[in-house]
Amino acid sequence: MASAEIVTIGTEILLGHLVDTNSVHIARELADHGVDVYAKHSVGDNADRLAAMLEGVLERAGGAICTGGLGPTVDDLTKDAVARTVHKPLVLHEPSLRAIEERFRQFGRPMAENNVRQAYLPDGCIVFDNPHGTAPGFVALRDDGKFVACMPGVPREMKPMLAEKLIPWLVQRFGLRQAIYTRTLHVVGIGESDLDRRVEDLFRTLENPKIAMLAHGGRVDVKVMAKADSPERAAALIDPVAAELRKRIGAAWYGDDDTTLAGAIVQALAARGLTLGTAESCTGGAIADEIVAVPGASAVFRGAIVAYSNEVKIALLDVPERTLATAGAVSEETAVAMARGARARLGADVVLATTGIAGPGGGTPEKPVGLVWFALALGDGEIETRRLTFPGSRADIRERATVAALSLIWRRLERDVQAATSTP
Amino acid sequence: MASAEIVTIGTEILLGHLVDTNSVHIARELADHGVDVYAKHSVGDNADRLAAMLEGVLERAGGAICTGGLGPTVDDLTKDAVARTVHKPLVLHEPSLRAIEERFRQFGRPMAENNVRQAYLPDGCIVFDNPHGTAPGFVALRDDGKFVACMPGVPREMKPMLAEKLIPWLVQRFGLRQAIYTRTLHVVGIGESDLDRRVEDLFRTLENPKIAMLAHGGRVDVKVMAKADSPERAAALIDPVAAELRKRIGAAWYGDDDTTLAGAIVQALAARGLTLGTAESCTGGAIADEIVAVPGASAVFRGAIVAYSNEVKIALLDVPERTLATAGAVSEETAVAMARGARARLGADVVLATTGIAGPGGGTPEKPVGLVWFALALGDGEIETRRLTFPGSRADIRERATVAALSLIWRRLERDVQAATSTP
Repeated sequence: MASAEIVTIGTEILLGHLVDTNSVHIARELADHGVDVYAKHSVGDNADRLAAMLEGVLERAGGAICTGGLGPTVDDLTKDAVARTVHKPLVLHEPSLRAIEERFRQFGRPMAENNVRQAYLPDGCIVFDNPHGTAPGFVALRDDGKFVACMPGVPREMKPMLAEKLIPWLVQRFGLRQAIYTRTLHVVGIGESDLDRRVEDLFRTLENPKIAMLAHGGRVDVKVMAKADSPERAAALIDPVAAELRKRIGAAWYGDDDTTLAGAIVQALAARGLTLGTAESCTGGAIADEIVAVPGASAVFRGAIVAYSNEVKIALLDVPERTLATAGAVSEETAVAMARGARARLGADVVLATTGIAGPGGGTPEKPVGLVWFALALGDGEIETRRLTFPGSRADIRERATVAALSLIWRRLERDVQAATSTP
Repeated sequence: MASAEIVTIGTEILLGHLVDTNSVHIARELADHGVDVYAKHSVGDNADRLAAMLEGVLERAGGAICTGGLGPTVDDLTKDAVARTVHKPLVLHEPSLRAIEERFRQFGRPMAENNVRQAYLPDGCIVFDNPHGTAPGFVALRDDGKFVACMPGVPREMKPMLAEKLIPWLVQRFGLRQAIYTRTLHVVGIGESDLDRRVEDLFRTLENPKIAMLAHGGRVDVKVMAKADSPERAAALIDPVAAELRKRIGAAWYGDDDTTLAGAIVQALAARGLTLGTAESCTGGAIADEIVAVPGASAVFRGAIVAYSNEVKIALLDVPERTLATAGAVSEETAVAMARGARARLGADVVLATTGIAGPGGGTPEKPVGLVWFALALGDGEIETRRLTFPGSRADIRERATVAALSLIWRRLERDVQAATSTP
């Protein structure tokens, strides 16, 4: 089995100024293609430390996969370190120089003397041209067959180079077949411990596929990971387990892999021929934003009224002044009035309203920071309400409230379907 | 100077299922306190590989700072590896056991046999109790004085432990003084290369403080980093450089460090006694969401009308049907009508309207995917419009449009101030 370690290069990463998402992407791609990743590392723009790091990597693993430090400036020292590690000099690679010159011509800018440095590569390496930037990538081989692959640090240059150049090279060189295939089941509206109780025996007993759980911001991802030598065999291992999980999770499951909660809602609304609108106070447009992020949302989404001030709640959502005065802006009564008002104004079949206290100020003993009222108005005039209190910062509370709002819509749409299908 | 390397532990990280934000946070804190971070590493739940990694770290640096793998399950092997590395056995730490038992009592749940494992720690280590979870943290010392510090992997448990326990321990043990202090100047509305031309000589010539630039999603961060032995001395180094940078950047600078663009706008509006509203089509509530994310936004933000369908544009924003029929929903005329309509309906002094094509479908040769029209309506009836085209995915286009909208509001507020102050 092929093995590698990932090395991301840049002082910005070590100072914590940059979140290293490159290594996450590379790790996932390597797992998908059956390369065993032993470790990930980040080093600064320091050729000695990088060279020492690469030495260590090549002792443990079959190769190093590096990003960053291929730029034109004096800080960009990756190639010096690689050349030392594989014992090859840096030599001018003419086709790369021409490509860099051509790129500058296209953009009508003069090429700096520095950019010539980017065309110097370890002697005899395999070169990956870079249609999205100036720095070419490459794989340099040491005489013992161990490799060091280098790609630019800019994600939009690195990602296509990885997919189109480096992965095919790895697949061919190592005859890769056995890979880790993952399917992620997305769950919302039940707690992690409740979910744990429902599926705990599968966690303990299954070996291939394995199951893992990851909770984040009110949602839980259940990952089913299979080792197999083809996508088909992986699916054969994963399918029955995923079916069993879905049975136990019920309506709290909203989709797999790239499906977002908002995406599942848009699809469910479209399938039922329903339209959606929102009336938002504390969520401030975040629910609408999630829905509009879904391609094709225009088929089901009418719009939103973000009524952050009482005046707007009265003028645009027809919330009675008396309700605001007696029950208050954050109350079940106001949430219901907002939902009804928005339904009439937006002409939507389903409307979700939120009103709450996101903090940091504005809390009282009866209405603490984190309290949010939700109201869901449906076509037949029915209203469902819910009161939830969320912990954390203003950002946490608003994120949790947004997920809870989407969860309410989703659970309601699913309940209707289940009720309809269970009718004799 | 104290030096360390950061090690995050968990197979989830190596499979790319989890973005490692812990090491970003730790790196920043260590830099702030003058600990030189040579490298960062991630390893899976494998005691042999972790022990080998820790050996290497202690050869190069003064210590290792680890997170993760302190849980109650058999996968949690961090302590076994640490015990081997520092040559100390794991022994039961009674106060930690009592704290774990107490925690389960508080939550009214029976303690699993496994949790006892969490109270076993390397003999003689310094123990950090964990008020936010069951796993205690600790620092284990090898006989040569090199250290391995371990903290839980859950960020809300790790962060307070780092701030309140580990950092004070490091400061005391190493008598830390010299640190890297960073000030970040935030810039919007001018391109990276334009900015580069204005400040390029400072980049080249300055040594302490140093300058670095980082572009992301339509904004640019200019970082001024000083090495100094106190915050006061750092400020004395940074202040004149920051002042020079602000002079060259002009109104495109909107604030430092934790200031967000939306936060700067809320502050500028409050200072001028103005209120804000938005009328959003393709941005779908994202601009409102950014504004509402700012604590205290209620003082200036009236609300938003997200008019995603033409019916809502007509009914709630008073866009003439004829305008939609002749100029189309994505046009200067519609953007202007939306801004005027929202100003009247929301009763706001400043209103920003957006209408565009976020894709992936819906583009034409004249109106391609990525085209967005902006209209800014002001109290005196004046309207400013702008047409921009953004590259990338639906998510990219919507993010860029949101930043551009905020930038338009910000630049306008600043221009008014500059015009007012330059009047004789």
